[in-house]
Amino acid sequence: MATRRTILTAAAEMIIERGYGGASIAQITARAGVAAGAVYFHFRSKEGLAHALLGLDLAEGLLPRRGPALQEWSDLVLLLARRLDTDPKVRAAPYLAALADSQDSWTSPWPAWRATVARPLHAAARDGELQTHVQPDAVAELLISAWAGMAGHRTSGSAEQQLRTFLSCCLPGIAAPATAARLEPAPRPAPGPGPGPAETAA
Amino acid sequence: MATRRTILTAAAEMIIERGYGGASIAQITARAGVAAGAVYFHFRSKEGLAHALLGLDLAEGLLPRRGPALQEWSDLVLLLARRLDTDPKVRAAPYLAALADSQDSWTSPWPAWRATVARPLHAAARDGELQTHVQPDAVAELLISAWAGMAGHRTSGSAEQQLRTFLSCCLPGIAAPATAARLEPAPRPAPGPGPGPAETAA
Repeated sequence: MATRRTILTAAAEMIIERGYGGASIAQITARAGVAAGAVYFHFRSKEGLAHALLGLDLAEGLLPRRGPALQEWSDLVLLLARRLDTDPKVRAAPYLAALADSQDSWTSPWPAWRATVARPLHAAARDGELQTHVQPDAVAELLISAWAGMAGHRTSGSAEQQLRTFLSCCLPGIAAPATAARLEPAPRPAPGPGPGPAETAA
Repeated sequence: MATRRTILTAAAEMIIERGYGGASIAQITARAGVAAGAVYFHFRSKEGLAHALLGLDLAEGLLPRRGPALQEWSDLVLLLARRLDTDPKVRAAPYLAALADSQDSWTSPWPAWRATVARPLHAAARDGELQTHVQPDAVAELLISAWAGMAGHRTSGSAEQQLRTFLSCCLPGIAAPATAARLEPAPRPAPGPGPGPAETAA
């Protein structure tokens, strides 16, 4: 599993740097520091690598915690942001998803991503935590579009910064007042590395 | 000017269909129904076409109307959505913007786009229309990321639908209460063609 992860990370880095067409198995093998056989054993082909990146579970690593379902959603939004900022595997996925539209052999991950983000919103709706006008699937789709857009250019601020803005602007418009009062108003800052000033300067 | 616009539209269509690398001047000329000389006269090169598409004024066609600056911002957000849904020139721009990051010769349009969207928000802040925690530049950046993300995949709903969700969720979180009461709660639906069911189905 560790080798698989090392190869996937190297593939994601090469795809981000050179594009899908420009990244070769040989480059990925060299970057990962593994034998070419390992890449073929785990993924069969470059297409297999793309499939694996598109199939990542975006909610992996989400820590369960007590509280409203909307708190879980808010935590998930920030997890997605941090993974986009720090994990090349996750950063490569929206780029590949855009290509998936034009590839017969790839399946768009969009429906799965939308479902992942919609799940806690549906739970929140069921528990009466949302204002009545809010449509969970529409909010989930908006969130995934915004998140994917953040992956597509390097001249903007971090995804975490942008999705904190999203939450601070949107939560008052979607949470029922009693739930809004129970949410952590400012989730904790991300530990670990994030993009520095050099990356966020226009 | 009409020829220029016809060529730009044809270029945008070909770039969306085949990618920037896959779209040739010959194909663009054929699609536009003009002589190749016209393309070279107006744009010099394929790169010149990309520059022109990246330089589009996103706020073109925004109708001034009386009311809070935040109403102008809300109108602008929906104009951006409709242009993304209906104008190939505008749809090609976020795709080219993502490529601009890796092209020495192209300038990222992101700062200009962000400024266009931030302008009415700064006016709104000056006029006391925003809640005090709202940072106009951060909201503008979020909006542009989301908008660009909507251009990057075809399996989701229309941009107009998604940005209406954005407005209905966000305006309560950014507008001062007195201003929120003055905004048109549901801006009019777009006239003219939009993506049909075939384009929005997953």
